[in-house]
Amino acid sequence: MPESHARRRHALRTGLRERDLDAMLVTDLLNIRYLTGFTGSNAALLVHAADEPGTEERTVFCTDGRYQTQAAEQVPDLERVIERASDLALAGRVGADTARYRRVGFESQHVTVDGLDVLAAAAGGGELVRAPGLVEQLRLIKDEAEIEALRMACAAADRALADLIEHGGLRPGRTELEVARELESRMLDQGAAGPSFDTIVAAGAHSAVPHHRPTDAVLAAGDFVKLDFGALVDGYHSDMTRTVVLGRAADWQREVYALVQRAQAAGRAALRDGADVREVDTAARDVIDDAGYGDNFMHGLGHGVGLEIHEAPALSQRGDGRIRPGMAVTVEPGVYLAGQGGVRIEDTLVVRPSTAELLTLTTKELVEV
Amino acid sequence: MPESHARRRHALRTGLRERDLDAMLVTDLLNIRYLTGFTGSNAALLVHAADEPGTEERTVFCTDGRYQTQAAEQVPDLERVIERASDLALAGRVGADTARYRRVGFESQHVTVDGLDVLAAAAGGGELVRAPGLVEQLRLIKDEAEIEALRMACAAADRALADLIEHGGLRPGRTELEVARELESRMLDQGAAGPSFDTIVAAGAHSAVPHHRPTDAVLAAGDFVKLDFGALVDGYHSDMTRTVVLGRAADWQREVYALVQRAQAAGRAALRDGADVREVDTAARDVIDDAGYGDNFMHGLGHGVGLEIHEAPALSQRGDGRIRPGMAVTVEPGVYLAGQGGVRIEDTLVVRPSTAELLTLTTKELVEV
Repeated sequence: MPESHARRRHALRTGLRERDLDAMLVTDLLNIRYLTGFTGSNAALLVHAADEPGTEERTVFCTDGRYQTQAAEQVPDLERVIERASDLALAGRVGADTARYRRVGFESQHVTVDGLDVLAAAAGGGELVRAPGLVEQLRLIKDEAEIEALRMACAAADRALADLIEHGGLRPGRTELEVARELESRMLDQGAAGPSFDTIVAAGAHSAVPHHRPTDAVLAAGDFVKLDFGALVDGYHSDMTRTVVLGRAADWQREVYALVQRAQAAGRAALRDGADVREVDTAARDVIDDAGYGDNFMHGLGHGVGLEIHEAPALSQRGDGRIRPGMAVTVEPGVYLAGQGGVRIEDTLVVRPSTAELLTLTTKELVEV
Repeated sequence: MPESHARRRHALRTGLRERDLDAMLVTDLLNIRYLTGFTGSNAALLVHAADEPGTEERTVFCTDGRYQTQAAEQVPDLERVIERASDLALAGRVGADTARYRRVGFESQHVTVDGLDVLAAAAGGGELVRAPGLVEQLRLIKDEAEIEALRMACAAADRALADLIEHGGLRPGRTELEVARELESRMLDQGAAGPSFDTIVAAGAHSAVPHHRPTDAVLAAGDFVKLDFGALVDGYHSDMTRTVVLGRAADWQREVYALVQRAQAAGRAALRDGADVREVDTAARDVIDDAGYGDNFMHGLGHGVGLEIHEAPALSQRGDGRIRPGMAVTVEPGVYLAGQGGVRIEDTLVVRPSTAELLTLTTKELVEV
């Protein structure tokens, strides 16, 4: 893994040189994790543009005394400074050597208005320059280490759902909250550090609420049960939705289910190198529109996943940009019939040069539990 | 509860008028929850300084379409705007009526550098003025509704620990992770929405690590087991640490335990209206210093709790300010002997006019499980 992090810092340096920056002060903890592997709750990183992999002499990492041992293990390849105010300590480095750090980028999308004041004071004669999104731009394209973590996170969710069903966890009489707790517990059993977001279990009419929070409502025979959940593994988030029927599905349930299934397949088929993100959304949306249910699909088709559960790119009409190999995204159309029930089917996929690879492997056929 | 929120907004208005602000644009979600009760993930609030409780005609709340129903229930007493970019929508209100909203405070400790640009553009001729910490200042002093939530959160943690011990959950052969999971599960059984932070279970030599993360390490007879955990109820966080011995305590364990117990009692005794926060820390620290273990207590004595697990005031030598009735804080001295074991004893308390009320009620006598 240290090689991955060195490679990512190297990629960041290309962006710095293009912007005539001598260095970048990274203060967002997820971006620091991406660039170093450090998982603690306090850190800053000053990446010099002219360093080379293997001899990063002007690139400095800072955290506080609680993490001294952890930092030595996780960030063995960089100079480490131990200071409580980690961002100020590294801004102080800039101020102490403005020949080396003349123009320094900072994450203006994360640093607060008050925070910039204190950073600028510490940086003294070094110029702090807005440089938003440079690391996020790199994070758009996952490397193989990241895809492996996503694969494990998706596998933990797949197995948890299979175990839940196999052990009779989905049955009339249980509450949504009980099912959600068991699903989360089974993800932990599979090695997840936790759920990747608050698990959604929505039964009966609740399944028509796109982001229902589980309640004490009791599952009943004939209900749609929509389960939207994911596992967190090595900092990476999986995201999957399946909708099952308790007992025999009614005709209207089969129809809605088949429609969402077709829309989801169309979305996955459109997910290929070079596609505009809006086109991917449109591919699935057209299927639902054509069936007359356009008003019942009132959210975007999907979103990127990685170190955050929601990250770029957005697969929606409000999105922007093109699909590229290495992007990891969800495809999750839904049809929601208020007061009656709804279906959403969601996978996490990674885009490959000529295809999109499924990371969530649970069947998408209609399951009658 | 709506009365509490109206009262809090009224208190904020006093601060606005003192600063010659016509209004405050609140964008931090915890501050919005404090002022309105809204629990969704997207919102903004524009509080006009001249409104009166009951007729808040110029005070506006905004969230997006997902939360339309929820907002109507949680924020019935304010005008509600439904817009995806909630902060921009309310900044737009400012821009549309700069006579009404001439000088508008914003949370410069939360708004990012890039975020201010777009807010200022939307506010047009309305002046956005830095106004950091106004709501946090109010949040320092908990009202009875908040204390009740903290009390429930502490009670859930108390009962979870009692249940864990009563059901034999603390015994040689179990792993730290198993105990942590059971403790978290038992807090859910007691009505908690979740743990208030990642549960710490540290056995044997691990108990000497102040913020150890639970591992597969197996509990053994004679171990200190340090449990630091809390429950989240209605958005409020409890925080408690107990250290027990598996089996019969050795003499050195009794000594260290008794020392921390005395230090903790001294800290609680010093927690009274008017005390400097540093004095409270000193009261406990002196006990440990005098016993020759000063270097083994390497963190502050405590911190505020509320809508955040760590909030003001800090009870430490780096802290600042005086204790006031209504503050809710932890008192948590520890003595850590590297490679051997450690003890921390922590309560959550609320300061009353002439005393400090314990919210965590579990015994602090040495428990031999």
